[in-house]
Amino acid sequence: MQIAIVLYDGFTALDAVGPYETLGRLPDARTVFVAERSGPVRADTGSLALTADRTLADAPSPDLVVVPGGPGQQALMEHAPLLDWLRTVDATSTWTTSVCTGSLLLAAAGLLTGRRATSHWLALDHLRRYGALPTGERVVFDGKYVTAAGVSSGIDMGLALLGRIAGDDRARAVQLATEYDPQPPYDAGSPAKAPAHLVAELRGRSRFTPS
Amino acid sequence: MQIAIVLYDGFTALDAVGPYETLGRLPDARTVFVAERSGPVRADTGSLALTADRTLADAPSPDLVVVPGGPGQQALMEHAPLLDWLRTVDATSTWTTSVCTGSLLLAAAGLLTGRRATSHWLALDHLRRYGALPTGERVVFDGKYVTAAGVSSGIDMGLALLGRIAGDDRARAVQLATEYDPQPPYDAGSPAKAPAHLVAELRGRSRFTPS
Repeated sequence: MQIAIVLYDGFTALDAVGPYETLGRLPDARTVFVAERSGPVRADTGSLALTADRTLADAPSPDLVVVPGGPGQQALMEHAPLLDWLRTVDATSTWTTSVCTGSLLLAAAGLLTGRRATSHWLALDHLRRYGALPTGERVVFDGKYVTAAGVSSGIDMGLALLGRIAGDDRARAVQLATEYDPQPPYDAGSPAKAPAHLVAELRGRSRFTPS
Repeated sequence: MQIAIVLYDGFTALDAVGPYETLGRLPDARTVFVAERSGPVRADTGSLALTADRTLADAPSPDLVVVPGGPGQQALMEHAPLLDWLRTVDATSTWTTSVCTGSLLLAAAGLLTGRRATSHWLALDHLRRYGALPTGERVVFDGKYVTAAGVSSGIDMGLALLGRIAGDDRARAVQLATEYDPQPPYDAGSPAKAPAHLVAELRGRSRFTPS
């Protein structure tokens, strides 16, 4: 199965690497990182670049597509080369997936209209404006569309999807191999759990805050 | 504070990207990916390359160094250019850290002798042979040496270290921004929790299996 993971300037690295590190361990996975142009693509911090080995055109029919999020998503919401590619590959994909604000790109391509989906917690209202039905779940399956919440949730999505594709045992083996036995030192990973002043602080500097 | 994250052929991408995505959000972080030679460095799967923007020589005195693990570690256990650099930067670092089998490289450089440390669960016995005192904990602090267990544990280490460096509130804000509210679909992330046949399977194909 070919897995295409999309890169673009200003993506968030963990959004892409979480699904890569889990789904990429499928026994027959052929993972390819793709972007409009091949070569290094800078993540949102500016301090890391991942290599796109192929262009979008080089990967016209992946079985599974992963669209990460990140601040760079905003500049692509009307960007035909990417949105057209997403529509094209979706026509033949087995799974069309996203992490974080990658779901806004799927929505902008018209692929989530009327579908249950999720995104980074700061972007859920925005997702609704593009016709999707946002939920507060961490990983949302709606048919072949699988969307994950913010950044780190791509790991959970990868394992859940791996279970659907290859069976629970393969998914558990990958969880064990990656020692994914999370023990966060704090319990502040969602707006329902984090201190209110931090939720307010992040809303205050969010690009998604309603004007 | 300068954070240097080491890359080498055959590293595991999530080992590097977990600490990057957490520690790199320190307000004054200047993160740099370094390798023996600058340019793209292939991860263990072959399907992903991260860019080293600087050579090891270009980063002679980072405040914090992160050494990821991965199958490529094995070829470097006597590799002077890396081990000498680790000893040099450790002389002035504030924090010397690793994820997964990165701790074997720190140990091979003589930096973990007599220290409590951890590694991927498959490599704990091996770590002992290099003079460290392995523990089963997910993140181990011993003075300025911080080691994390397998692959995904670098996220937990990054948050724990961030709390020590910048305070609990900053760490919680990063946890919230990265929506690190893990909900693994299975409970198989450690050998104590995974089905015995999967633990045996992974031991059977491990490069660390005692001969």
